[in-house]
Amino acid sequence: MLLKSSLIRAVSQTKGVITRGYKAKAKKIPEFTQDRYQVSRKSFAAVTDSDVSQFEKTIGSKYVVTDSEELLTHNVDFLKAVRGNSKVVLKPGSTEELSQIMKYCYEKNLAVCPQGGNTGLVGGSVPVFDEIVISLNRMNKIHSIDEMTGIAVADSGVILENLEKSANEHGLVVPLDLGAKASCHIGGNVSTNAGGLRVIRYGSLHGSVLGVESVLANGTVLDLMSNFKKDNTGYHLKHMFIGSEGTLGIISKLAILCPPAPRAFHVAFVGLPSFDAVLQTYLSAKRQLGEILSSCEMMDKDALAAAIQHFGLKPPIGDFPFYMLLETSGSNGDHDMEKFTSFVDHGMETGNILDGVVTGEPSKINEIWKCRELSAMAIVSRDGFSFNYDFSLPLRQFYEMVPVMKERCQPLAHRVCGFGHLGDCNLHLSVCFPEYSQEAYDLVEPFVYEYVSKLKGSFSSEHGLGFFKSKYLHYSKNNEAISLMKDVKNLMDPKGILNPYKVLPLK
Amino acid sequence: MLLKSSLIRAVSQTKGVITRGYKAKAKKIPEFTQDRYQVSRKSFAAVTDSDVSQFEKTIGSKYVVTDSEELLTHNVDFLKAVRGNSKVVLKPGSTEELSQIMKYCYEKNLAVCPQGGNTGLVGGSVPVFDEIVISLNRMNKIHSIDEMTGIAVADSGVILENLEKSANEHGLVVPLDLGAKASCHIGGNVSTNAGGLRVIRYGSLHGSVLGVESVLANGTVLDLMSNFKKDNTGYHLKHMFIGSEGTLGIISKLAILCPPAPRAFHVAFVGLPSFDAVLQTYLSAKRQLGEILSSCEMMDKDALAAAIQHFGLKPPIGDFPFYMLLETSGSNGDHDMEKFTSFVDHGMETGNILDGVVTGEPSKINEIWKCRELSAMAIVSRDGFSFNYDFSLPLRQFYEMVPVMKERCQPLAHRVCGFGHLGDCNLHLSVCFPEYSQEAYDLVEPFVYEYVSKLKGSFSSEHGLGFFKSKYLHYSKNNEAISLMKDVKNLMDPKGILNPYKVLPLK
Repeated sequence: MLLKSSLIRAVSQTKGVITRGYKAKAKKIPEFTQDRYQVSRKSFAAVTDSDVSQFEKTIGSKYVVTDSEELLTHNVDFLKAVRGNSKVVLKPGSTEELSQIMKYCYEKNLAVCPQGGNTGLVGGSVPVFDEIVISLNRMNKIHSIDEMTGIAVADSGVILENLEKSANEHGLVVPLDLGAKASCHIGGNVSTNAGGLRVIRYGSLHGSVLGVESVLANGTVLDLMSNFKKDNTGYHLKHMFIGSEGTLGIISKLAILCPPAPRAFHVAFVGLPSFDAVLQTYLSAKRQLGEILSSCEMMDKDALAAAIQHFGLKPPIGDFPFYMLLETSGSNGDHDMEKFTSFVDHGMETGNILDGVVTGEPSKINEIWKCRELSAMAIVSRDGFSFNYDFSLPLRQFYEMVPVMKERCQPLAHRVCGFGHLGDCNLHLSVCFPEYSQEAYDLVEPFVYEYVSKLKGSFSSEHGLGFFKSKYLHYSKNNEAISLMKDVKNLMDPKGILNPYKVLPLK
Repeated sequence: MLLKSSLIRAVSQTKGVITRGYKAKAKKIPEFTQDRYQVSRKSFAAVTDSDVSQFEKTIGSKYVVTDSEELLTHNVDFLKAVRGNSKVVLKPGSTEELSQIMKYCYEKNLAVCPQGGNTGLVGGSVPVFDEIVISLNRMNKIHSIDEMTGIAVADSGVILENLEKSANEHGLVVPLDLGAKASCHIGGNVSTNAGGLRVIRYGSLHGSVLGVESVLANGTVLDLMSNFKKDNTGYHLKHMFIGSEGTLGIISKLAILCPPAPRAFHVAFVGLPSFDAVLQTYLSAKRQLGEILSSCEMMDKDALAAAIQHFGLKPPIGDFPFYMLLETSGSNGDHDMEKFTSFVDHGMETGNILDGVVTGEPSKINEIWKCRELSAMAIVSRDGFSFNYDFSLPLRQFYEMVPVMKERCQPLAHRVCGFGHLGDCNLHLSVCFPEYSQEAYDLVEPFVYEYVSKLKGSFSSEHGLGFFKSKYLHYSKNNEAISLMKDVKNLMDPKGILNPYKVLPLK
């Protein structure tokens, strides 16, 4: 079946915008977290000159940062929403050096904040008080990539995009892709169990990561590296480090299974009349595109409008209540295009798809992806003060909160919109006000958390808890689970020096 | 590209053999484990009449089994290799009943052995001494299967084949398939992190299982159920229960993500001249079949010969040093067949494939699968006394042990062969002697474990440790990892009443 000719059209151009590795719009440096939020400093030791001297002996003075300007970049997060007050950043060059640092800190009761690319969105990667920042950015060696087995072994501090490039050279892809790929570290991705754009195809990092090496609170190096998908010799301890955000150990090295690079990519951008049509189209994509479906994203018209307004984006199709971006990747381009066009034609016949473009041309694929990525960027960085959420929700209720929040927050809020990884049940909800106010805050929180809890959703699908969301843990987890989390934390880090004030509720 | 006509031929018939849900050949009941192996009973309480009365009150006398004949089936494992001496089997009908049982046992210091379908191969699912057997077979309700999300929620005791049938009715498949599917329980599969035939396509259960509900040693019900692929709210505790073989808690319910049922299956059975050709063919399959490859099995001629000898199997092609069975499943049969034939043609052109058949016809697919399944069955159950192993090995050294063991064990061993899940680096090595002898044992063990350790492999890829293999843990795991496993066990089950003498080394 051939693509309907009306669907084949040039994709509009959007010039001069960098969607990968972008920086947020310049914002003011926030006030200290310790001043803005009511947090009590725990009774850790404070770093002394003698400690700094010892660190200089251990890893070399060049890698012990006390310069205030450089410190600032490690104390403030990507969103400029939190600011720690650390006096020293350490940059170990090896697992052995990292181990020695932790051994010393454990003995001296010094708290630490492990830091990867510092691209997290929940305040997890910067200190809250004066925790020592341990930056992994010197531990950036790719040890091996095996074309036959697909296994890549890399240090924690390897930038995701660099790992992807190396994997590509071996005919492989990293089973993880996200907007921050030019800055984020693979170790940080694993520590936070990052999701992103390929989960629908390659699953979560709990499936892809074969092994990790971690440095524990007391400096012990725990080698759980593995070159195998299957290894049933004892407890599967590596999972304790995937998604625990550096609070149980610092991942220093890892092995990840990289699938063969697809030979063909295709992308469709379609307009739909209703959320029900979105759901039906998703179901149809799962059935008809099955094994080649590699992304299934949705956004509403208000999300796309943000990119049009703030970045001058010219979308490839006209105005519709909903949009979907679907990507396929496979080993035979002709087969994939045939499946894709058949799928889109079917959607148009049923009336679920009103208009759309399908392309296999790389430059056009990039243009289409900008619709999705610039929408997110515009909302987060240029649309006044936005409350941004990252929920997992039952598919049938996936979009329910957006009209509810509109009803609740407009007209004070000028934009309430939803977009996200539909194929993973992962909605990003944004509520944008001209500026922050207590009234705005009270309209939004804790209402959204209570609503998610009522729908039995998760209030942090892929971003983690970090500093900001730990207090909401009870909305997604019951007392028994929280109690066991605390027991595990106490077992692994009895002094609580690893990334304190994060993940687990303070009270 | 069309399939070469020489490849298209009828597949030979093998009549009257049931490959699914088969039973091992009648073997004598083994002597008590406590007599055969040098294990000391730990200081648990022994079950009293008063305990039995209490259990009868809790779950009803009908479900408290003390009849010696029925007890025997729960005391002896599938392979008839170990025999416990339990005096009572409990069959709770709900999580609440299971919780009450555990609360009681914890208070009274009574040890328990959770039991699913009792199809394990490492002596993990039967008692070693007089542990109370807790059979999950009454907890067999499928709570829901959601066609839209693909999520199936089931009690632990649901038989895998029943779950598969229900999933099929909803247009889905369970992402797990193995020989014991007619008997094994999905809860047992998850507890042991079962592998099987679909791992290459759908990954491990750590990726597929979305949530579990477990009953802890003290009777606490830990609800970690989830309906989401992505949920980054706190530690990912569910993984502690996947593959810990009932030693950290008893899984009572679970949610598993079921992919859409493929619309087309194809299978190829090919003959190859060397193991190097096997490897090249595997690489080629990954590249050319990519997203539709759903099984990639290999066996050597001695493995196939066992099925010919003991089951009268007529293989579909002639004699070759190596055989591979490849399966594809996808959403478009024509596309899949085109890819498959192109792949096989390419293999024949390069000389890596010498002969083969490709079929999409269900009855012929079943016949071909018998070649693989009957080989395993013949070796394990009908070929004298066989030492059978389940290794993960680096792909390049995948087959290295087979000629080494031949050299070492023949002529005392009449068969040394290898087969397994090549696509998962999972070799099943078998060394068969006319009967068990100390001389045979000494030829094989601990040599094989040392060899696997030297190759940095895993000595238990998918079968687990159970009772038999816990003593070898140090061959695959270092001291730090074993130490943390013990700490975790002590945290979760301080009295050690959950499946004692299993997984962790006794000394």
